[in-house]
Amino acid sequence: MNRLELLALRGVPAVAPGDDLAALLLEAAGRFGLELGGGVLVVCQKVVSKAEGRVVALAEVTPSAEALAIAEEDGKDARQVELVLRESRRIVRRGRGVIICETHHGFVCANAGVDLSNATGPDHAVLLPEDPDASARRLRDALMARGTGPLGVVVSDTFGRPWREGLVDVALGCAGFRPIDDQRGGPDLAGRILEVTAAATADQLAAAAGLLMPKRSGVPAVLVRGLDPSGDGSVSDTLRDPETDLFR
Amino acid sequence: MNRLELLALRGVPAVAPGDDLAALLLEAAGRFGLELGGGVLVVCQKVVSKAEGRVVALAEVTPSAEALAIAEEDGKDARQVELVLRESRRIVRRGRGVIICETHHGFVCANAGVDLSNATGPDHAVLLPEDPDASARRLRDALMARGTGPLGVVVSDTFGRPWREGLVDVALGCAGFRPIDDQRGGPDLAGRILEVTAAATADQLAAAAGLLMPKRSGVPAVLVRGLDPSGDGSVSDTLRDPETDLFR
Repeated sequence: MNRLELLALRGVPAVAPGDDLAALLLEAAGRFGLELGGGVLVVCQKVVSKAEGRVVALAEVTPSAEALAIAEEDGKDARQVELVLRESRRIVRRGRGVIICETHHGFVCANAGVDLSNATGPDHAVLLPEDPDASARRLRDALMARGTGPLGVVVSDTFGRPWREGLVDVALGCAGFRPIDDQRGGPDLAGRILEVTAAATADQLAAAAGLLMPKRSGVPAVLVRGLDPSGDGSVSDTLRDPETDLFR
Repeated sequence: MNRLELLALRGVPAVAPGDDLAALLLEAAGRFGLELGGGVLVVCQKVVSKAEGRVVALAEVTPSAEALAIAEEDGKDARQVELVLRESRRIVRRGRGVIICETHHGFVCANAGVDLSNATGPDHAVLLPEDPDASARRLRDALMARGTGPLGVVVSDTFGRPWREGLVDVALGCAGFRPIDDQRGGPDLAGRILEVTAAATADQLAAAAGLLMPKRSGVPAVLVRGLDPSGDGSVSDTLRDPETDLFR
């Protein structure tokens, strides 16, 4: 593997609940003569969530007492805070107007991934997919059923991190390749045994694709070519066990 | 920006203290007819550290009482623990045989980045560069002095993260482009104001390049083409202020 090519998929129309995302992505790819098979398609969470109907009208949200209290304290929209709480298993940290949540999936991120920007319209929020690994698998199956040939799929989102400013795209779900490339136990160049080297391939793919998906670009997917997707696995299996995690 | 190309720079010989890294990289690039100018060159920390002589013979390290105690408790080489302590401002977490340190630069990572694998020989450890931003800038200057034309440089390393298994490459230092692409305050597609969107471009470049630099590949650098490096900045300016960080 000496060369990777990343191609932004442009021209995908605004996605609405119930849309056939595979068809929309294939159509856009076809316009550029792009073959998706053999590559890894990184798709941003927002379009996946929209197609799956994970869009909530804020007018229909009744904030709980807890949401009202946090909203009051942080100067936020209580209905949005309510959605954040509903999407969370627990709050990991709260401070400086930021709510770091552990989502029901086990992701640790700001606002449980609830997003108001790029939503389907004003006063709507987009939630993370209920099961992003299943979303990735469904999308992969739908693409392959239309004849793409084997490919990998990543559903990605943009997360902040502790210790460093700036956001990096990470994988929420994947299908069709191993999300972690386990090099543990292999020899290094000097023949010494590597004790712990497990590259988070799915996250590195998401981050790479993020370079072509700046917020206002309207690019919902990036095709990565030159990496042979092999094996299989899910992102949920790569989340650290809270029991062994030093930062919960 | 619709397309990125990543090219692994192969055929770089083993780097030794005092080597002219720019010359070695240019020679390897030249063999493939690669122009480095106009792209971003991601160089792994290991070769930068080696060229800068950040290699320590364990035989010359005398462990302190603290290092001996930790080594005893964790079943580690006390000389290596001593180096970890010397490279650290403080220990952020310790448990399950792992030492998470805050380095003197302000990076939070396992073992303060001290590495035994791929070292220059048995019983040697490689430390992080003393000032990776300065390393990136020197390398950039040296490459441009040899006529590459403007380019960006990232010095990258492979870090673990909280909450997620697997390692992802991050930027330790950079030069010749803005490490954070600040999209704050810009409108999203629906015209709403984006409050916080600052993409960590340097880290996304490092992660992308990491896909072509698996541990045993012997690939010390990856050229990213298709991204117009512009502006300037350093990674050290993008580390979160410990005072405002929720995870220290």
